Amino acid sequence: MTDEATMKAAMQAYIDGFNRADAAGIADLYADDATVEDPVGSPPKKGKQEIAAFYEMAVATGAKLALAAPIRASHGDSAAMAFDVQLNMPEGRAVIRVIDVMTFDDQGRFTSMRAYWGKSDMQVLEAAAAG
Amino acid sequence: MTDEATMKAAMQAYIDGFNRADAAGIADLYADDATVEDPVGSPPKKGKQEIAAFYEMAVATGAKLALAAPIRASHGDSAAMAFDVQLNMPEGRAVIRVIDVMTFDDQGRFTSMRAYWGKSDMQVLEAAAAG
Repeated sequence: MTDEATMKAAMQAYIDGFNRADAAGIADLYADDATVEDPVGSPPKKGKQEIAAFYEMAVATGAKLALAAPIRASHGDSAAMAFDVQLNMPEGRAVIRVIDVMTFDDQGRFTSMRAYWGKSDMQVLEAAAAG
Repeated sequence: MTDEATMKAAMQAYIDGFNRADAAGIADLYADDATVEDPVGSPPKKGKQEIAAFYEMAVATGAKLALAAPIRASHGDSAAMAFDVQLNMPEGRAVIRVIDVMTFDDQGRFTSMRAYWGKSDMQVLEAAAAG
């Protein structure tokens, strides 16, 4: 089983990769047959190709991730983290408050990611300047 | 499906019930056949009786819960929250950093709880006074 420090380092690498807009680097953190359900309740992306395409689109938005609290591990093959997605929406500067849960294989790669956020977790912080 | 506001209110009621040391009140938030896996990687408690006994023991420790970030919902039947468990251990005042993920039935009761925390998420903040 992957140890807690290795799982937490992979979670941090996910945040850092996202903030470098490194979609390929993020996809490399995943096992080949991994799944991504973002948000939880939507149809999962499955496999490296779909996952890489998802992150190419996600980093292209210019969104940045900021941890809201220290990353948590577990007594099993899972870890979790709360973070804020900072982004610009047509309505203005906004935040989406998310908790990601990852499961891991024995090589420390993500086998699944589930992102908990709902419509009520999106908030416009500052209205866009008019036209 | 239970709406986001209802799920978040139940999560907050869990925090508040714990901080009142109201084990029966917490157990009432669960469906009859619910499961509790705390920490993730340990054998789950199953059913109201085991769950009530678990919380009686948990609140008897005097531990208190403090949200570390706003509660998250999802686009499905799940919600998640990051919080700190504040408690006194033999080694001194301590914190356990946890993320709980709950699933819900249509009546807004928890059908499962999974608590993500590992040994690396426990920290002694202040050593106990000698003697």
